[in-house]
Amino acid sequence: PSAEHAALAAARQQVLTKPPGSLGQLEQLAITLAALNGTDRPTVDPVRMVVFAGDHGVCAEGVSAFPQEVTAQMVANFAGGGAAISVMARELGASLEVVNLGTVGEVPMLPGVIHQIIGPSTANMAETPALGPGQVAAALTSGDQAAERSANAGCRLFIGGDMGIGNTTSAAALACALFGLPPEKLVGPGTGLDSEGVARKIRVVSKALARHGDDRNALSVLTSLGGFEIAALTGAILGCAARKIPVLVDGFIVSAAALVAVKQQPGARDWLMFAHRSAEPGHDAVLEALDATPLLDLGMRLGEGSGAAVALPLLRAACALHNNMASFADAGISGKSGE
Amino acid sequence: PSAEHAALAAARQQVLTKPPGSLGQLEQLAITLAALNGTDRPTVDPVRMVVFAGDHGVCAEGVSAFPQEVTAQMVANFAGGGAAISVMARELGASLEVVNLGTVGEVPMLPGVIHQIIGPSTANMAETPALGPGQVAAALTSGDQAAERSANAGCRLFIGGDMGIGNTTSAAALACALFGLPPEKLVGPGTGLDSEGVARKIRVVSKALARHGDDRNALSVLTSLGGFEIAALTGAILGCAARKIPVLVDGFIVSAAALVAVKQQPGARDWLMFAHRSAEPGHDAVLEALDATPLLDLGMRLGEGSGAAVALPLLRAACALHNNMASFADAGISGKSGE
Repeated sequence: PSAEHAALAAARQQVLTKPPGSLGQLEQLAITLAALNGTDRPTVDPVRMVVFAGDHGVCAEGVSAFPQEVTAQMVANFAGGGAAISVMARELGASLEVVNLGTVGEVPMLPGVIHQIIGPSTANMAETPALGPGQVAAALTSGDQAAERSANAGCRLFIGGDMGIGNTTSAAALACALFGLPPEKLVGPGTGLDSEGVARKIRVVSKALARHGDDRNALSVLTSLGGFEIAALTGAILGCAARKIPVLVDGFIVSAAALVAVKQQPGARDWLMFAHRSAEPGHDAVLEALDATPLLDLGMRLGEGSGAAVALPLLRAACALHNNMASFADAGISGKSGE
Repeated sequence: PSAEHAALAAARQQVLTKPPGSLGQLEQLAITLAALNGTDRPTVDPVRMVVFAGDHGVCAEGVSAFPQEVTAQMVANFAGGGAAISVMARELGASLEVVNLGTVGEVPMLPGVIHQIIGPSTANMAETPALGPGQVAAALTSGDQAAERSANAGCRLFIGGDMGIGNTTSAAALACALFGLPPEKLVGPGTGLDSEGVARKIRVVSKALARHGDDRNALSVLTSLGGFEIAALTGAILGCAARKIPVLVDGFIVSAAALVAVKQQPGARDWLMFAHRSAEPGHDAVLEALDATPLLDLGMRLGEGSGAAVALPLLRAACALHNNMASFADAGISGKSGE
């Protein structure tokens, strides 16, 4: 990030025709984007959205309200345009890619879907490490390649999304292992478990954490407790940071991937903005650890990158206001009394 | 509002390809808009934005950080395209009208500005009622005419905005009088008073409230303590409700106008959605009195309708998701396990 352009943008915010500070968080957003873009006239367009999909072996333990076949079915729904993120990509004029990393259900060849199959699903993390070392590397590479495609397409903002029945279990386990916190603090209902289901999910995460032990190395934790799509999101975030592409982070799953990325590479944090506070209870702790103040708090908990998509217009508004408002001098408007 | 269409929309939200409830507040927004539109496929477009401008006699008491001439200067800035609301209207493809109700500074004839001059400013409410009875009627009519123009243009959402140096003083006084609360609870820094300025503003509002007495009739309060633009916003809200046009309410000033409107005509509340929680401290009490949960909390405090403009994409997202997502049946996707 460019401190020089942050300073120029901050100075510009002081002379636009509004009381200084009156645009609230939108002012800091514009300043942050100016620093990330290395310009005092920031933009987030074009926007690239990439949804990574993968199945989770831990579903054998009964941790989700939805059957595992839904992961593959939703990949087809992304491609067909009927999913929330598909609707939002069209609505917002963003390009959408779907990367299928491996699902238990069969996914046919579909336009807009990139198949980079690592396996039919991760292993059951309650019993054994979820990924093999080669699988983690493959998923990180898949994410990095998505960042590279975004860079090659000239994209100025990256939104990553997730699809994987069982992935709030994996994300909660990852965060617990990295924080050294018990699962009661971070496990929630996901797609809609009842209290009995949440209790079972807590027992499953406890078992996985006991198996994993107290190794807090980010890559070890990712290998032991991660998912294909979460590891790919980690790779995408690291790849975007390396290529100076700002990332608008979605909810609980993407934030868990971001946490792993920042543990691995602390400088990656600079490239992250946070879209929303998820209704999934574990998100708060992850946001706090990342020192993140999200833009929205609408009780969303869908994943797919949908919360980031809904927040995107706030970034566009921040840029439009910053770039296109008149200054006091330009518009011949008096400043504060006595100044 | 149509309970039948609310029920249809609520049923649709249950079958879209997402865990029920996972779009959070966006689901209820779509249901509310369906009820207001009388259709199960709601829309907010086309959007009309109208900024009402007027000066405040109470500025003689030194209640604002900005000189009074700024009101007229900003009317020219709205017309010239350099103000925040002008930028947002272009960015969002909304039509923007500016209604000049009377400013101390001179406003030339400008394209996009409707002149409906009531006087150069209200009277100083610390000394005497701010408006005469004929002036209140004229301002209410101006707002109603804006609602009528919106209806004639086929607009499906109305965003009202305010411009008037001194108008947080008037809005705070209005709310205090309607609630029977002391000014310490509702007076804030507005465009940027320091603590000494806020203390002076509290004394001025106290003096106005003492003069006004304990009459809580909405029209009496509006006459005694209102502003031209606040009264016009009240008229616009009542006019929109009468014409079944949903209103996205901006910050402190428009919410104060909405409070007067709802006291006058409780049924008007049904047509109001609330965009954001302003940084101006009095807004919380007004929102609570209106039983309003705003969409955004970004620390904005600019007025002009800018907070509502920034929130507009959330309404569009709610409609797009509701109208365009596939259902589980359409997409051939399995529902929750055991259902």
